[in-house]
Amino acid sequence: MPELRKDPIVNRWVIIATERAKRPTDFVAPDNGQDSPKGCPFCPGNESKTPPEIYAVRTDSTRPDTEGWTVRVVPNKFPALRIEGDMEKFGVGIYDRMNGIGAHEVIIETTDHFEKIEMQRVDALVNVFATYKVRLADLKQDERFRYILIFKNEGATAGATLAHPHSQLIATPVTPKRIREELVGAQAYFEYKDRCIFCDIIREELRQKDRIVYENNSFVSFCPFASRFPFEIWTMPKRHHPDYDSIGRDELFAFADAMKVTLAKLTTALGGTHYNYILHTGPVRWRRRGYWATLEHDFHWHVEIIPRVTNTAGFEWGTGFYINPTVPEEAARFLQETQV
Amino acid sequence: MPELRKDPIVNRWVIIATERAKRPTDFVAPDNGQDSPKGCPFCPGNESKTPPEIYAVRTDSTRPDTEGWTVRVVPNKFPALRIEGDMEKFGVGIYDRMNGIGAHEVIIETTDHFEKIEMQRVDALVNVFATYKVRLADLKQDERFRYILIFKNEGATAGATLAHPHSQLIATPVTPKRIREELVGAQAYFEYKDRCIFCDIIREELRQKDRIVYENNSFVSFCPFASRFPFEIWTMPKRHHPDYDSIGRDELFAFADAMKVTLAKLTTALGGTHYNYILHTGPVRWRRRGYWATLEHDFHWHVEIIPRVTNTAGFEWGTGFYINPTVPEEAARFLQETQV
Repeated sequence: MPELRKDPIVNRWVIIATERAKRPTDFVAPDNGQDSPKGCPFCPGNESKTPPEIYAVRTDSTRPDTEGWTVRVVPNKFPALRIEGDMEKFGVGIYDRMNGIGAHEVIIETTDHFEKIEMQRVDALVNVFATYKVRLADLKQDERFRYILIFKNEGATAGATLAHPHSQLIATPVTPKRIREELVGAQAYFEYKDRCIFCDIIREELRQKDRIVYENNSFVSFCPFASRFPFEIWTMPKRHHPDYDSIGRDELFAFADAMKVTLAKLTTALGGTHYNYILHTGPVRWRRRGYWATLEHDFHWHVEIIPRVTNTAGFEWGTGFYINPTVPEEAARFLQETQV
Repeated sequence: MPELRKDPIVNRWVIIATERAKRPTDFVAPDNGQDSPKGCPFCPGNESKTPPEIYAVRTDSTRPDTEGWTVRVVPNKFPALRIEGDMEKFGVGIYDRMNGIGAHEVIIETTDHFEKIEMQRVDALVNVFATYKVRLADLKQDERFRYILIFKNEGATAGATLAHPHSQLIATPVTPKRIREELVGAQAYFEYKDRCIFCDIIREELRQKDRIVYENNSFVSFCPFASRFPFEIWTMPKRHHPDYDSIGRDELFAFADAMKVTLAKLTTALGGTHYNYILHTGPVRWRRRGYWATLEHDFHWHVEIIPRVTNTAGFEWGTGFYINPTVPEEAARFLQETQV
């Protein structure tokens, strides 16, 4: 059973995943992500190589765990957290821990081993992003979870261990530290200004214009003013809502279009970079009492895209103080000019 | 002039270092750190290849910027922050920025290109760590700075661009986010318990014993309870003091011994791993009014050592929520058993 442990100084929860690699000799270099479809557990025909599927978009009345799907959700074979069991919170001396209860799922985005997300047609991508919504809405029913995190690691240096295009979902019994800071910061701003900080940022970006990467009717992608990383991009819905799962059918198309163009520009500009993106959505609804009371107004879901073009050094890791060698306005101009 | 920009949501300052790499084509893979002494700007005889030295430990009456030193401090040739100029804080629309004023120095730890820090004799290492103290005390006089960060990147994957053993110092006009969180967390604990949380942690670690890596009379190295990374180690002085520059002569020897043994165990156990270490010391003294009033009691200087054995994935980067595949007690046992 994995374990959640809390740092007593800064109140940061860490997952101690005992069932993953352990000993020093286990830390082999990750492969380069160029594994082949042969034997790939995410390729059609290999459905039996994954745990039984949780959900799938299927084109006809094919049976679960057989071919016929276009998007498929399965439990992670090596989960960081376990779905079965009780929280069992208790102290160890001065420290706090709880059982590593949670969900860890893999969203297989396509049947094609080589079709990266930005290569997909918009209508196919809509199915991927609709699947995010379905899984989010489902897991929100589980009262043990406080946050559901959806993210994608693209490429080995971004942490992907399998090349077949996929996203991941982790449902956690604690709110991740950075998300919590965002919630707290947004709430403080709302209390001060009576406006959503994200709405204000969108307005400011559309006014200043020099950090915009792409815009359509419902979404805007831009390099944030205080980008931590070169070519960091945030994609935000223009309509205010805290929860991703509020997304409607038309918005899904616009979101798919924005993500496709933004990621295509990024990978074209940087020559096929590895990257991560993380969906920042509101915390689970049952938590909305007291502290999160104003959440409807102050939080605003969005995606943060982090290309892996620089090695983060000790300075950044140990301090949370980033050095970004690329001016965000220059990154945005370059991405704007990149034809896709 | 580099620029400091503040993220308006989580109040995180980022250095936008305009004079470093800029365009996508500039992001070449870092070299493997195996550069040779020939042409190395940190090797003796090549003193003219660095900016003029700020400080050096010299064995006899040799002149600055010539041979005869054992530890040498020079400005970083490609500084993330600039020492000359005014802060010039102002807003840009809804955003906040200031000039990138600060110091960025390199501490060359040895004349020997291949002598890694843990290979040095304890009495030689004392000179390195005494140099940290000298530079810290000197830069604290500059009223523009709020924090002085000393850190080391060992190996290319840890961010080192030159192989010759060196540490770095960055003095900043803002307190780095993670350090600030630590100060705030420690203060909250002190207010609640009337005890230093770090002193309590040391006591608890010496009582539980199962995460100790090394201990001498004045220092203890251990894998923290909620380690973010496999084989993460914190080295702490047993004597309570917020500031590293309070370290005395005897303590310097004990510190050099603790760091030498701890790093030797780490690199031996993991077969020459790349790592970062960061000195966490109290903020600059002139700031101690109001908010930092109780700092003398609540903060406790220490070193955090972060080996680079896993690739941090998008999940961790975007959320501050870490997955550590190695149980800290197992890491500590392994390091304890490693003979050096």
